[in-house]
Amino acid sequence: MSKKLWGGRFSKSTDEMINEFQASISFDKRMYHEDIAGSIAHATMLAKCGIIADADKDSIIAGLKKILTDIEQGNFSFDVALEDIHMNIEKRLTDAIGEAGGRLHTARSRNDQVALDTHMYVRKEVVNIAKLVFDMQTAFVETAEKYSDVIMPGYTHLQRAQPILFSHHMMAYFSMLSRDFSRLKGVYERADIMPLGAGALAGTTFPIDRSFVADQLNFESIYTNSLDAVSDRDYILEFLSAASIMMMHMSRLSEEIIMWCSREFSFIELDDAHCTGSSMMPQKKNPDVSELVRGKTGRVIGHLMAMLTTTKGLPLAYNKDLQEDKEGLFDTIDTVKFSLAVYAQMIRAMKVNKDVMFKAVSDDFSNATDLADYLVKKGLPFRQAHEVSGKAVHYCIEKKIWLKDLSHDEFKELSPLFEADILEAIKPETCVKNRNSFGGTSYTQVENQLQLAKAMLEKQQVVIDEYESKQIQI
Amino acid sequence: MSKKLWGGRFSKSTDEMINEFQASISFDKRMYHEDIAGSIAHATMLAKCGIIADADKDSIIAGLKKILTDIEQGNFSFDVALEDIHMNIEKRLTDAIGEAGGRLHTARSRNDQVALDTHMYVRKEVVNIAKLVFDMQTAFVETAEKYSDVIMPGYTHLQRAQPILFSHHMMAYFSMLSRDFSRLKGVYERADIMPLGAGALAGTTFPIDRSFVADQLNFESIYTNSLDAVSDRDYILEFLSAASIMMMHMSRLSEEIIMWCSREFSFIELDDAHCTGSSMMPQKKNPDVSELVRGKTGRVIGHLMAMLTTTKGLPLAYNKDLQEDKEGLFDTIDTVKFSLAVYAQMIRAMKVNKDVMFKAVSDDFSNATDLADYLVKKGLPFRQAHEVSGKAVHYCIEKKIWLKDLSHDEFKELSPLFEADILEAIKPETCVKNRNSFGGTSYTQVENQLQLAKAMLEKQQVVIDEYESKQIQI
Amino acid sequence: MSKKLWGGRFSKSTDEMINEFQASISFDKRMYHEDIAGSIAHATMLAKCGIIADADKDSIIAGLKKILTDIEQGNFSFDVALEDIHMNIEKRLTDAIGEAGGRLHTARSRNDQVALDTHMYVRKEVVNIAKLVFDMQTAFVETAEKYSDVIMPGYTHLQRAQPILFSHHMMAYFSMLSRDFSRLKGVYERADIMPLGAGALAGTTFPIDRSFVADQLNFESIYTNSLDAVSDRDYILEFLSAASIMMMHMSRLSEEIIMWCSREFSFIELDDAHCTGSSMMPQKKNPDVSELVRGKTGRVIGHLMAMLTTTKGLPLAYNKDLQEDKEGLFDTIDTVKFSLAVYAQMIRAMKVNKDVMFKAVSDDFSNATDLADYLVKKGLPFRQAHEVSGKAVHYCIEKKIWLKDLSHDEFKELSPLFEADILEAIKPETCVKNRNSFGGTSYTQVENQLQLAKAMLEKQQVVIDEYESKQIQI
Amino acid sequence: MSKKLWGGRFSKSTDEMINEFQASISFDKRMYHEDIAGSIAHATMLAKCGIIADADKDSIIAGLKKILTDIEQGNFSFDVALEDIHMNIEKRLTDAIGEAGGRLHTARSRNDQVALDTHMYVRKEVVNIAKLVFDMQTAFVETAEKYSDVIMPGYTHLQRAQPILFSHHMMAYFSMLSRDFSRLKGVYERADIMPLGAGALAGTTFPIDRSFVADQLNFESIYTNSLDAVSDRDYILEFLSAASIMMMHMSRLSEEIIMWCSREFSFIELDDAHCTGSSMMPQKKNPDVSELVRGKTGRVIGHLMAMLTTTKGLPLAYNKDLQEDKEGLFDTIDTVKFSLAVYAQMIRAMKVNKDVMFKAVSDDFSNATDLADYLVKKGLPFRQAHEVSGKAVHYCIEKKIWLKDLSHDEFKELSPLFEADILEAIKPETCVKNRNSFGGTSYTQVENQLQLAKAMLEKQQVVIDEYESKQIQI
Repeated sequence: MSKKLWGGRFSKSTDEMINEFQASISFDKRMYHEDIAGSIAHATMLAKCGIIADADKDSIIAGLKKILTDIEQGNFSFDVALEDIHMNIEKRLTDAIGEAGGRLHTARSRNDQVALDTHMYVRKEVVNIAKLVFDMQTAFVETAEKYSDVIMPGYTHLQRAQPILFSHHMMAYFSMLSRDFSRLKGVYERADIMPLGAGALAGTTFPIDRSFVADQLNFESIYTNSLDAVSDRDYILEFLSAASIMMMHMSRLSEEIIMWCSREFSFIELDDAHCTGSSMMPQKKNPDVSELVRGKTGRVIGHLMAMLTTTKGLPLAYNKDLQEDKEGLFDTIDTVKFSLAVYAQMIRAMKVNKDVMFKAVSDDFSNATDLADYLVKKGLPFRQAHEVSGKAVHYCIEKKIWLKDLSHDEFKELSPLFEADILEAIKPETCVKNRNSFGGTSYTQVENQLQLAKAMLEKQQVVIDEYESKQIQI
Repeated sequence: MSKKLWGGRFSKSTDEMINEFQASISFDKRMYHEDIAGSIAHATMLAKCGIIADADKDSIIAGLKKILTDIEQGNFSFDVALEDIHMNIEKRLTDAIGEAGGRLHTARSRNDQVALDTHMYVRKEVVNIAKLVFDMQTAFVETAEKYSDVIMPGYTHLQRAQPILFSHHMMAYFSMLSRDFSRLKGVYERADIMPLGAGALAGTTFPIDRSFVADQLNFESIYTNSLDAVSDRDYILEFLSAASIMMMHMSRLSEEIIMWCSREFSFIELDDAHCTGSSMMPQKKNPDVSELVRGKTGRVIGHLMAMLTTTKGLPLAYNKDLQEDKEGLFDTIDTVKFSLAVYAQMIRAMKVNKDVMFKAVSDDFSNATDLADYLVKKGLPFRQAHEVSGKAVHYCIEKKIWLKDLSHDEFKELSPLFEADILEAIKPETCVKNRNSFGGTSYTQVENQLQLAKAMLEKQQVVIDEYESKQIQI
Repeated sequence: MSKKLWGGRFSKSTDEMINEFQASISFDKRMYHEDIAGSIAHATMLAKCGIIADADKDSIIAGLKKILTDIEQGNFSFDVALEDIHMNIEKRLTDAIGEAGGRLHTARSRNDQVALDTHMYVRKEVVNIAKLVFDMQTAFVETAEKYSDVIMPGYTHLQRAQPILFSHHMMAYFSMLSRDFSRLKGVYERADIMPLGAGALAGTTFPIDRSFVADQLNFESIYTNSLDAVSDRDYILEFLSAASIMMMHMSRLSEEIIMWCSREFSFIELDDAHCTGSSMMPQKKNPDVSELVRGKTGRVIGHLMAMLTTTKGLPLAYNKDLQEDKEGLFDTIDTVKFSLAVYAQMIRAMKVNKDVMFKAVSDDFSNATDLADYLVKKGLPFRQAHEVSGKAVHYCIEKKIWLKDLSHDEFKELSPLFEADILEAIKPETCVKNRNSFGGTSYTQVENQLQLAKAMLEKQQVVIDEYESKQIQI
Repeated sequence: MSKKLWGGRFSKSTDEMINEFQASISFDKRMYHEDIAGSIAHATMLAKCGIIADADKDSIIAGLKKILTDIEQGNFSFDVALEDIHMNIEKRLTDAIGEAGGRLHTARSRNDQVALDTHMYVRKEVVNIAKLVFDMQTAFVETAEKYSDVIMPGYTHLQRAQPILFSHHMMAYFSMLSRDFSRLKGVYERADIMPLGAGALAGTTFPIDRSFVADQLNFESIYTNSLDAVSDRDYILEFLSAASIMMMHMSRLSEEIIMWCSREFSFIELDDAHCTGSSMMPQKKNPDVSELVRGKTGRVIGHLMAMLTTTKGLPLAYNKDLQEDKEGLFDTIDTVKFSLAVYAQMIRAMKVNKDVMFKAVSDDFSNATDLADYLVKKGLPFRQAHEVSGKAVHYCIEKKIWLKDLSHDEFKELSPLFEADILEAIKPETCVKNRNSFGGTSYTQVENQLQLAKAMLEKQQVVIDEYESKQIQI
C-alpha cells in the first residue's frame, strides 16, 4: 500500500476497504482544473509573500501545468490510495519536481483547498447553466412569436377556464425561468467568496495575502471567519434549492407537454427525433424527454434533501460528512444542464395544432366569465352577474348547447340586461382581446410582454458576459 | 348548509365532509389583515378607474374596517362552509352593507386574491424574522466581546485540532447568520411582486390599474404574466429553503451546545431558566432548547420537501394542490421565530467555563501544527515538517507526555532545527496569537472581525428600517 | 409559575417562553386515553408485585377513571407549565387523591411512559386506517362490478396503448391498496411491543413484572433492551413510510381522476357534492378532492422526511429531539384517514361515460399490438411483425384513417399473411377478450381477479377483527 | 445511427442527444444476469406452451448463455443507441442466432421485462444485505461478550443519567438491527412477486403460463393485475425506506463512536487501520468511517425522497419517469453494503477504555435515581423521594462533592430514612446490578439478552439459508 502523506502519527496503515470507502478521487477528479488553478495562485502568493522562493514557485507552476496537460490528454492515472484530487496532484508534482513540491501545501490545508475548488467549480457551472436558461428563455420567446395568433383554453384545476393566447402560456414559462436566472445570481454571489487561507480551521501562522489570491482567481470577496470558511456549504445548498425550483418549473412544463401530446388533447406534436417508441406496441410515440425531466425533478429534490440532512447537526468546523457534498452536486449540475439543453431543442421543433386548440375554446363554456363581466358592465353587481352566468351554463348543459347557441329570448330570460352584442362579447377572440389589463392575455399585452422579455434578456446577457469574463484560464 | 357564493352552476350542494376537507379557513384566517388591506386597495382602485361608484367604495372600506375591528376583538366567527378567509370576509361584508359588497370582487378572482394575501404575509413575516436574526447576530457579538480572552480547542472531525478563541467560534455563527439575512433579502424581493389583477389566470376585461394597487400596498413590481402570477409559489419555496438553511445553522450550534453541556466537555453552563429536569432522575439538567431546535430542523426541512413535492408536475395555472402551501409555511414561520427568540436569550445567559476550555488546549496535541510550522519557518519543506511533527506526537503518546514536556535533547533528536524558542512557539496563547492571517483566530483578527460585524449590522439595520417603512397599516 | 415536579435540583424556575417552547401538551393531550390506560395497568402491576399497597392502587385507579371522565366531558384544563399529558394527569391525580398519587410514577420514567402511550396510539390508529383501506378496496370492487362491461384505453406514457376494461383499471388500485394493508400489518407488529419498565433508559431497581403489564394492555411482545425501548421510533418511521406509499397510490388515482374529469378526456363525471366552483368563473366544476389528496401527498412525504432527519445522528438513549415525533405523526394519521374516507365516498358516486371511453378505443391505434400478434400467430417472428404493424400505423396516419379502415389490398400489401379475419382480431372487444393471460384484462381474468379480491378481503377482515379485539377499553 | 428495434412507425431517427438522455444502459447493465435468467425462463415457457419451436428455444438459450459469458469476460460493448440492457442483449442475440432471436420478445414488453429484472435484482441484493446485517449483529454480540464487565454512563439528553453496562449499550444496536432484518423480510416478500406476462400493461394474447415462469425463477407469487405489475415500484420504495431506517441506526452509532473517540470522552480507541490523518495537522486521528456513514445517511434518505417524489402523481400504467427508479436504488444498495461491511470490521477492532468509562460513573451524580429508589423502598412516595434526591444533588454541587462523599449526618439531614447501607446502594456496580427488571442493564439481564440474541440469530440464519436457496443460477 502507498504511504499516506499524513501518516507520521500512525502505527498501522489504512485498511484497503476503508481506503476505498473514504476516498473521493472517483468523483472529485472532475475538479482538477480548479485544483490546479488554485494551487498556481497559492504558490504565486507564497512566493510574493516571501514564504517560498521564486525558483520553487516557478518549478511548482511548471509542474502543475504539465500535470494539467497530462490529465487533459488522458496521461494521468488516479490512485485511490491517495484519496482525493488534491493528494493525487500533489504526489505527482513532488515525484516530478522534488522538494519544491513539498512546499506547495505550506499555509494550506485540504479543508480550505477543497472549499476553494468547490467554490470555483460551482461558480463555473452556474455560468454554464445560466447560459442554458437564457437559451431556453429565448426558445420560449421564439415560440411565442411563431404562434402569436393561436388561441387555446387556459386551465385551472385542469378545467377549461378562459380562452388565452398560446403565446401567453409560453411566456408564463419565460417568467418562471427569469426568476430561476435571478436565483442563480444569488448562488453565484454566495459562491464567489474566497475560502483559501482559512487553513484547517483557524487561519495560518504564515504571513499570507488572501486578497492577492482572491484577485488572481477573480473572487469578489473573502471569508471573514476561518471556521466558517471551511465548514460553509450554504452555496451548495442554495444551488440545489435553486436547481430544485428550476426543475419543478420544468416538470410543470413537462406535465403539460405530456398531456398536450395525448390523443385526448392533441394540442401539439413533438418531432420524431425527440420521441421514442415501444418494444411491444407498434403505434406508440412517447414524449420520453418530458417524462424523464419530470422524473428527474425527484432526483434533484432528493439531492437537496440529502445535503440538508447531511449538514444538519454537524459541529464546527470540518467533518468528513461534508465530503458527501459533491456527488449530489455534480449529478444535479449534469441533470439540469442536460434537461435544459434537450428541452430548448424540443420546444423549438414542436408543432402546434392551432385548429384543435381553437375548437377547444369554441365548443366550450370558457367564455362564461365574459358573460358575467358583460352584465357587470351593464350595472349588475359582480356576485349577481356570476350567479346569472352560472345559471346560463347550467341551462346550456341541460340543453346540450353552448352559450353562443342561446337564443335572444333565452338570454333575456336569464337577464333583461342582455343585448344583441352579447354574442360578440363571448367570442373567444373577443374574450382574449378584452383581457387587456397589464400582464393579461390580450394580443396587445402579450406583445408588450415580449418586449419586456427582450429587454430582460439583454440585461441577463450583460450578467453572463461579466461572469464569463471572470472564468479562470490557466 | 350555506349556499356557496359560486353555486350557480351546481345542482347539488357540497357534501359536509368535503366541505371540511377542502376548507382552508382554519389556517388561512391568520391572513385576515392582509386580506382586508388588499380589498381596501382593490376597492379604491376600482373606484378610481370608474369601475365602481365612490359611494360603493366608501361603503366597502368602512365595512372592511369594521370587520377588521371585529376580528381583532374576537367578534367574528369563522364559518367552514364559507371555505376561506376571503369568502368569510366578503360574506360578512355583503351581509353588512348590501349590494355594494357584491361589487368588491369585480375584476378579481380568489386565485389572485390569495396570491396577494400570501405575498403580503410572507413579506411581513420575513421582516419579523430578519429582526430576530439581527438580534441573534447581536447576541453573538456581545458574547464574543464578553469572553474575548477565552481560548478553547477548535475541532475538526470532533478531534481537537488547533487552539482558537471562543469569540472566534461565536463569530463563525455570526457569519452564517449574515448569509441567512442576505438570503431573506432575496426572499423579500421575490415576494415583493404584486399579483392582483391576474384574475383567475388570464387578466380581466375591466380597465383596472395594477400600478395603482401596487403603489397603495408598497409593492416594488408587478407580475408581467397573469398565468404565472396565480401559479407562482417560488417565493414560498425560497423562504422554506432559506429557513431550512437557517435552521441547519441553528442545529449545528445546538449540537455544540449540547456537547459543551455534557459532563465530558463541561465547557459551558446554561441558565437554570433555560433547562429542564427529569421525572425520574433527580440530578438531570437537560439542554432541552438546543435539542428541540436541532429536532425542529427536521420539521422545517420536511415542510420544504412537502412543498417541492406538491408543486412538482402541476400543470398551469392554479390547482387546488397549491392550497397546501400555507400550513407548512405558517408552521415554519412560527418555528423559526420561536427558535431564534429563545436562542438569543439563552446565548446571552449562558456561562463559559474558561478554565476547563483552557485545560483542553494545554494538555493536548492541538499545537502540533505549530510545531510543524516552526520547522517550515526554519526552512524545512512543509511535507517533511508535517512528518516530523507527526513523529513527535507519536513519541509523546507512547511516553504519555505532551509536546511541551519534551526535553531539549528529545527535540533535537526529532530535528536539529529545534531551538529553545520552540516552547514559546507551542504555547496555546502563541498558537492563537500567531494565526494572524485575515479571518484567522488571532486576537487582532477577531477584533477586526467584530468591527466588520458591527459595520454589517449597521447595513442590515438600514434594510430592516426600509422594510419596516413598507409595512401596511390600515 | 407552577413548581415543576422535577424541580428539586434547580435554583431557578423555567423561563416562561421556554416553558411554552418545550411543552408538548398542546398536541400530546390527544393520547390521554392511552396515558390513563397505561397508568392503570402500571398501578395494577405495582400492587401485584407488592411495590405499592392495594389501597393506593385502588385510589389511583379510581382517580384516573375520574380524570378520564373529566377530560371526555371537557372538564379538564390543560396547563402548559405542566409540560405534557403525563404530568398534567399525574398532577391532577395527586391533587385529588394525595400521597398515593405520588406513588404512581414509581419504577417508571416519562421516557418509557411516552413510548408506551405512542405505541398504543399508533396501534389504535393503524386499525382505524386499515378499516378505511378495507372500505376503499371494497369501493373499487363495487365500482369494477358496476361497470364490468366498460372498455377504455389503457395508457403508457399517457399515450393510448391497448384497450382494457375499466374494471381492470379499478382493480389495479385494489392491488395497490392490498399491499398498503399488508404494510400496515408490519407497522402494527412493530408497534405492538411493550416498552414500559425500561425506566429512563436502564430498567428499574424495583421488582416489576413487565409481562403482566403487556398482558393487561394486549401487547404481543416486550422490548428486550431498555435503551432501545425508550429511543426506538422505528414504528413511527415505518408508519410514515407506509402512509407515504399509500398517499402516493392515492395521488396516482387523483391524477387520473383529474384528467378524466377534464373536457378533453370526459371519461367520468363526479357528483356535484364532491366538487366546488370558482369565485370568478361561473362554469367551473373542479375536482378539488383529488387535487387536495394529490397535494397532501407532499405533506405526508414531508412528515416522513422530517422524522428521518430528526432521528438521524442522535446518540442513545432519549433526546428531546424525539418529542418532534408526534405532530407529524398525528397530522399524517388525520390526513390519511380523511383522504380515504372522502375518496371512498367519491369513487362510489362518480359516473362513468361509457360511450366516450369506447370511442377512445374505436377511433385509435391502440389495437396495433393485436395486429402484430396476429402476424406472429401466422408465423412471423415478433420483431418483424412489430415492424409491419408500425408501418401500417404510419401508413394510416398519412392517409388519416384507422387500421380498421384498411382495405384487403392494403393489408395484403403490408403482409401477405393478413386474411379476412384480421378485422375481427383488431376490434376493441376482441383485443380485450384475447388478453386472457393470468392477470390480464380479459373479461374472464377480471372476473377471476374479483374473486381473488373478495377472498383477500375476507382474510383482511380476520386481521381487522383480531386487531379490534385487542383495542383497550377502560 | 443505429436503427431502433421499435422504429417502424417513425419518419425520423432519434436525435443523438436525446438518445443519450433517455438511455439507461450506463446503469441498468448491472442487471445483465437477471435479464438473461429471465429471458431463458421466458423462452423455455414459450416453447413449453407451443408459442415458439423447441429448436428456437434451444438456439435462444445457447445464445443467451454465450452472451452471459461474453459480458462476464468483458467481451461485450454496450451501445447507448440500443437504450438499455434488454435491447443490447436482444440485438446481440439476433445478430448471433438470426430469426429465432426475433421470437424471444413474443408475449413480452420491456415494461414487464424490466420489472422482472428489477424484482430479481432487489431480491438478490436484499439477501446480500441481510447477511451483512447478520454479521454486524454478530459483531455486537461478540463485542458485548468481550467487554461484559465494563460499566459506563448511560445518557439521556447527552447528560449522564444512570450507570449501565457497555454490553447493554452494544445490545441496543443489536435490537435495532434485528428490526432492520425483519423489515428486509417484508421487502423480500413484496419483491418476490412475478410481473412477467403483464406485457406492456394489459397482459398478452398468447397462451402463456406465468406460473411456469414463476416456478423457474423461484417466485413465491404472481401479480394478479397486469397494470399494477408494470407500474408497481412499492418494493423499491420499501427497500429505500428500510435502508433509510437502517442507515439512521448506523448514524446514531456513528454519532456515538465519534463522540467516544473525542479527547473529552476518550471511551474507545479505533484501530489505526480504520482512521485517517490530516494533511495539515500532524496529531490528528479521525474517525472518518463513522463520519462518512453518518453523512451517507442523508444520501440514502435523499434517494427515498427522490423516488417518492418521482412516483407521486403518475397516471397508470408505465411512464418513463419510472426509469429513474434504478440509480438511487443501486447507489443505496452499494452504500448500505459498504457501510455494514466496513463497520463490522471496525467494531470488532476497536478498544474500550474501561477505566475511563468507570471513572465517568464514579465521579458523577448518575446514581441519584438509586438514592431516590432507596428512599421509596423505605416507604417514601416516589415524588417525595425524587425531591429529596434532587436536593441532595443540589447540596453536593454547592459543596463540590459527590453523593458518596456525604457524611452520615448530612444524609440524615436530607432524610431520616437514610441508613448506613445507602453507600452500598449508590455504588455504580450496585446501581447496575439492581436494574434487574426484564430488559434492564443488570449483569443477569444482559446475559439473558445475549442468549435471546443468539436464538434470534439462529432463526435469522434459517431465513438467510432459505433465501440463498432461491437465488438463481444460470
